[in-house]
Amino acid sequence: MKYEFNTEKEFDIIAIGRACIDLNAKEYNRPMEETMTFTKYVGGSPANIVIGSSKLGLKTGFIGKISDDQHGRFIEQYMKSVGIDTSNLVVDKDGHKTGLTFTEIKSPEECSILMYREEVADLYLASSEVHEDYIKKSKILLVSGTALSKSPSREAVLKAVNLAKKNEVKVIFELDYRPYSWDSSDETAVYYSLVAQQADVVIGTRDEFDVMENIEEGNNEMTISHLFDYSPELIVIKHGVDGSYAYMKSGETYKGQAYRTKVLKTFGAGDSYASAFLYALIRGKDVETALKYGSASASIVVSKHSSSEAMPTIEEIEQLIAKNETISSSPEVNRL
Amino acid sequence: MKYEFNTEKEFDIIAIGRACIDLNAKEYNRPMEETMTFTKYVGGSPANIVIGSSKLGLKTGFIGKISDDQHGRFIEQYMKSVGIDTSNLVVDKDGHKTGLTFTEIKSPEECSILMYREEVADLYLASSEVHEDYIKKSKILLVSGTALSKSPSREAVLKAVNLAKKNEVKVIFELDYRPYSWDSSDETAVYYSLVAQQADVVIGTRDEFDVMENIEEGNNEMTISHLFDYSPELIVIKHGVDGSYAYMKSGETYKGQAYRTKVLKTFGAGDSYASAFLYALIRGKDVETALKYGSASASIVVSKHSSSEAMPTIEEIEQLIAKNETISSSPEVNRL
Amino acid sequence: MKYEFNTEKEFDIIAIGRACIDLNAKEYNRPMEETMTFTKYVGGSPANIVIGSSKLGLKTGFIGKISDDQHGRFIEQYMKSVGIDTSNLVVDKDGHKTGLTFTEIKSPEECSILMYREEVADLYLASSEVHEDYIKKSKILLVSGTALSKSPSREAVLKAVNLAKKNEVKVIFELDYRPYSWDSSDETAVYYSLVAQQADVVIGTRDEFDVMENIEEGNNEMTISHLFDYSPELIVIKHGVDGSYAYMKSGETYKGQAYRTKVLKTFGAGDSYASAFLYALIRGKDVETALKYGSASASIVVSKHSSSEAMPTIEEIEQLIAKNETISSSPEVNRL
Amino acid sequence: MKYEFNTEKEFDIIAIGRACIDLNAKEYNRPMEETMTFTKYVGGSPANIVIGSSKLGLKTGFIGKISDDQHGRFIEQYMKSVGIDTSNLVVDKDGHKTGLTFTEIKSPEECSILMYREEVADLYLASSEVHEDYIKKSKILLVSGTALSKSPSREAVLKAVNLAKKNEVKVIFELDYRPYSWDSSDETAVYYSLVAQQADVVIGTRDEFDVMENIEEGNNEMTISHLFDYSPELIVIKHGVDGSYAYMKSGETYKGQAYRTKVLKTFGAGDSYASAFLYALIRGKDVETALKYGSASASIVVSKHSSSEAMPTIEEIEQLIAKNETISSSPEVNRL
Repeated sequence: MKYEFNTEKEFDIIAIGRACIDLNAKEYNRPMEETMTFTKYVGGSPANIVIGSSKLGLKTGFIGKISDDQHGRFIEQYMKSVGIDTSNLVVDKDGHKTGLTFTEIKSPEECSILMYREEVADLYLASSEVHEDYIKKSKILLVSGTALSKSPSREAVLKAVNLAKKNEVKVIFELDYRPYSWDSSDETAVYYSLVAQQADVVIGTRDEFDVMENIEEGNNEMTISHLFDYSPELIVIKHGVDGSYAYMKSGETYKGQAYRTKVLKTFGAGDSYASAFLYALIRGKDVETALKYGSASASIVVSKHSSSEAMPTIEEIEQLIAKNETISSSPEVNRL
Repeated sequence: MKYEFNTEKEFDIIAIGRACIDLNAKEYNRPMEETMTFTKYVGGSPANIVIGSSKLGLKTGFIGKISDDQHGRFIEQYMKSVGIDTSNLVVDKDGHKTGLTFTEIKSPEECSILMYREEVADLYLASSEVHEDYIKKSKILLVSGTALSKSPSREAVLKAVNLAKKNEVKVIFELDYRPYSWDSSDETAVYYSLVAQQADVVIGTRDEFDVMENIEEGNNEMTISHLFDYSPELIVIKHGVDGSYAYMKSGETYKGQAYRTKVLKTFGAGDSYASAFLYALIRGKDVETALKYGSASASIVVSKHSSSEAMPTIEEIEQLIAKNETISSSPEVNRL
Repeated sequence: MKYEFNTEKEFDIIAIGRACIDLNAKEYNRPMEETMTFTKYVGGSPANIVIGSSKLGLKTGFIGKISDDQHGRFIEQYMKSVGIDTSNLVVDKDGHKTGLTFTEIKSPEECSILMYREEVADLYLASSEVHEDYIKKSKILLVSGTALSKSPSREAVLKAVNLAKKNEVKVIFELDYRPYSWDSSDETAVYYSLVAQQADVVIGTRDEFDVMENIEEGNNEMTISHLFDYSPELIVIKHGVDGSYAYMKSGETYKGQAYRTKVLKTFGAGDSYASAFLYALIRGKDVETALKYGSASASIVVSKHSSSEAMPTIEEIEQLIAKNETISSSPEVNRL
Repeated sequence: MKYEFNTEKEFDIIAIGRACIDLNAKEYNRPMEETMTFTKYVGGSPANIVIGSSKLGLKTGFIGKISDDQHGRFIEQYMKSVGIDTSNLVVDKDGHKTGLTFTEIKSPEECSILMYREEVADLYLASSEVHEDYIKKSKILLVSGTALSKSPSREAVLKAVNLAKKNEVKVIFELDYRPYSWDSSDETAVYYSLVAQQADVVIGTRDEFDVMENIEEGNNEMTISHLFDYSPELIVIKHGVDGSYAYMKSGETYKGQAYRTKVLKTFGAGDSYASAFLYALIRGKDVETALKYGSASASIVVSKHSSSEAMPTIEEIEQLIAKNETISSSPEVNRL
């Protein structure tokens, strides 16, 4: 079964939210205290997703706020270089900095991150900087959950969602839950529910849906039963190496498998999943095939050093799908 | 035409939001600099509305946060004394204070207020302090806009609205716009729109609807055309002494007139209006009659010294309606 | 023994720090919950001291920041009316409010206060608003400890002290410790020590000196031994109804007794003490006599309703001293 | 002329203040946007100074606060590895991060930095974490100005200075002015004056002394005339490549010259200067010779990639002094 988009829109995906810098340990398989060199990449979930989609050939744009310094300019230059429209990227004039993520890769099973997220520019995107004229040009508005964690970025996203719905733009909500961004689980649940109820497609891990419902050990049946009372038509729930499920309001359910790969680190899996899954949907693949694209893309990224630079091409994805080596158990691939 | 409520609910109205202290100039018709004595009353829009409704005989409750001091205890004692259920009134344990409003009455035409709203307890109501078991017992959840101005009170209200809709409790949204509570007009518009779209009944002045729409000089036709695409079934737009309009989704429109009275001050008009209007609706009066109850109640309160203590009885309201002395022009009665 | 001042200075005392509003329970001998009316007075320790000194006939000035509203204007008008120079009173332009103190008088032994001190104007006095040309005109710069509790008022006071010392202006440090103003006892001790070491005269209760030393149950001998290593020449330590001690660097010690009076409340005792003590010193009385003026003035104020309005005249003070009814035990008169 | 220290103290220098991370562009002579790799070093003025002093053979300790993460542990491990006592290094338990400095080296003349200083651990050192027993063991307490920029670090330093003076520990104040750390020039001037007046030795650039005096284009004669009225006995004022001046309260003045070197970048010059200057003083060299050590050390560091790792040995310093190639004009070596 296919999922339909308005084909008259100029952009395939416009994402809103954070774009920041990853500083990946150059010397890995050791604790970060012993890493002396770091390589710089663009990072941040919605940025990674449009970078991935753009590399796959989609027409994309980005609404966000970047710092008025070398890091902010690097982000903008990189986005442009992969074909993303940056006309709605706002430069912060109040001294806020670009968020940073240092990665530590002790082993494929032991990865951790060290975040700098105090007063970062991306969370200062204001609702007055979100424009109806731009949003209405896109098939999809991609929202990632972290942008809801603080004002004024929160209001910017709520306004963007409101404008998308008014203009027949599909709202894709990638839950992208980062605990350190939020003040309380109650607050997270309030905003995750609010946006999920208004979204057309919701994508997240099982753990992230639990956060949205403010419960522990939730189950997929209850989740979809609740959300299908509201706007969502398609819900994707990911269970790491156990694969992922796509539920449609019309009743169909599909299961996708993870692909076997040599894991270097676990970062970036969720973002590469989303970029290829959305690519496939937009290109008219059926939902079952789109699940394969998502899984294959995730498997490729976890075998490489970065999250953004490593985003695969169509050929890489399709080759991996063709090999058809799915897995039933392996080191768990969580979002990190 | 009548507006229907679920008659099996235990409470008529549960309000959520701020309860604070008014300090009204005892010596008036002079600038506040020359006022040496102040009389203490309970204040705050949603508190005033349930105090008014309770005096009229409705069964009411209040969800809010009060300071752990003499002012907080005064509010609780007063609410209990007029019959409001205070089981969901939370005592703040972090040292936040009760909001204060000093009133200055230079003349009936020149009233102003001096607010103390820094770090006030009511804005610290947390979403974890809002309980489904309580909200679902009421015919109406009354939300006033100021409670949306700051976190965590904002999230508490968003959660309450979500729970009300889940449990067939009518959401009445009294816009109650106070500019000093908000950081920007964009932010206000985002949350006012979000809650208005989910509410069943929306009540406000024409100016307040303009704030919701983030425009100047809006008109009622556009306002109702937009909101009737969403949940609202009844919208009341007040135009001061020019009277008020009630619009129903089913198409009917009613106009209410203001009643002639000797104006002492302009405070409290909106709250007394809402309490009597809702009383009438709940008691099964038709909308046109409810408008008269609202106008009469407002006229009575502006002739007296306080906003809460002065809330009228049914007899007073019905006598004023019976006299039928409406006005076409007079000193403007704004919300203050 | 007398204490000498530079007689060529135009002002006797310039005080720096907070001026705010007291709202005193009009109906007393009851909990504040049952008080319905409050009377407004100017309050705040340094303001009370210059009001008291001014009424006694000294030439005084005040450096402080007041709110741009009716309360701020009331303070300025009142100060002018009692003869205080307000040329260096700055009007806050950032919306900060006047601090408030509601008083509760349950009985002479049970008095408490309810403070509004969030974001108050007096703590926003900036160092750029403190002018050398003004400070150097005074015999005394009176500093009260609370102004040190927050930036930028803290820096304004540190600058004022620096300028006073540079210009042969005696620095009188009234410890005036208010726990709710401070973040930690360590922080208080740091700034109290810093200013006390630079002051010429230090006045406080035994409890307040303990706060300065960050210890419990300190003793006067250790306190003066430490401080006399630095600038102070005269130290006054008050022990409530047990009287007060004045220690001089030159070695003399004097003891003052409290006077018998009918106590209404305990507020304002410390401020009236300081105003009359400083008055006597400036008028050339010896230290022993100055102690009597301080005690008598305190006894008079605790028998009356306000702290500022109630500041006594010379005649009242001298009559009480003449009656010579001192006390050895009675309801404790703490600073409140 | 020599400067005397208490020779019975166990430590030569205990520094207080910030220790953070420098991320130096590995590919230089280009804008940072084009730098893809960064090398990690310990940084921060007082940390650099004790690292330098420790490498020269002095017995040093450090009082500071580090983050509870990989960056904080790296700092502690590095300090230990060069022989610094870290027993008074406190681990932050409130989630504050290590400060970061990204360096950009476009050319020897064009260097800039990109700082992350929001909510950094070093500024959360509390006065309760400063211990008299430790400070009193040292000949020198080294204070750098940036630690005064925010509470509670500010109070920790003020307390440390108070304890040093009480225990005959020389207070060396390195002005180390970083504009982005401060809220206003008035505030800076207040605290710089306060500490400089209490210090025994004050070291800074001419620009930094202007900041202390809150003036533009100050001159050395006025600066020393003012400060010698207070505690300071030795004042070093640096004029970049024009050399530096040492003024003694006893009247002597000495001038030091900068040494010719191949400049890679300008970072770290001031810190290496201070470490070698203090080393020489402590080792009993006369002031004139100490100026040469400072200059030579600075010249060596600016020719290398890092500020801390690059700190020279005695042999390197003495060889450069022996070559005696001083300069009169060259690219300006500012503190950066």
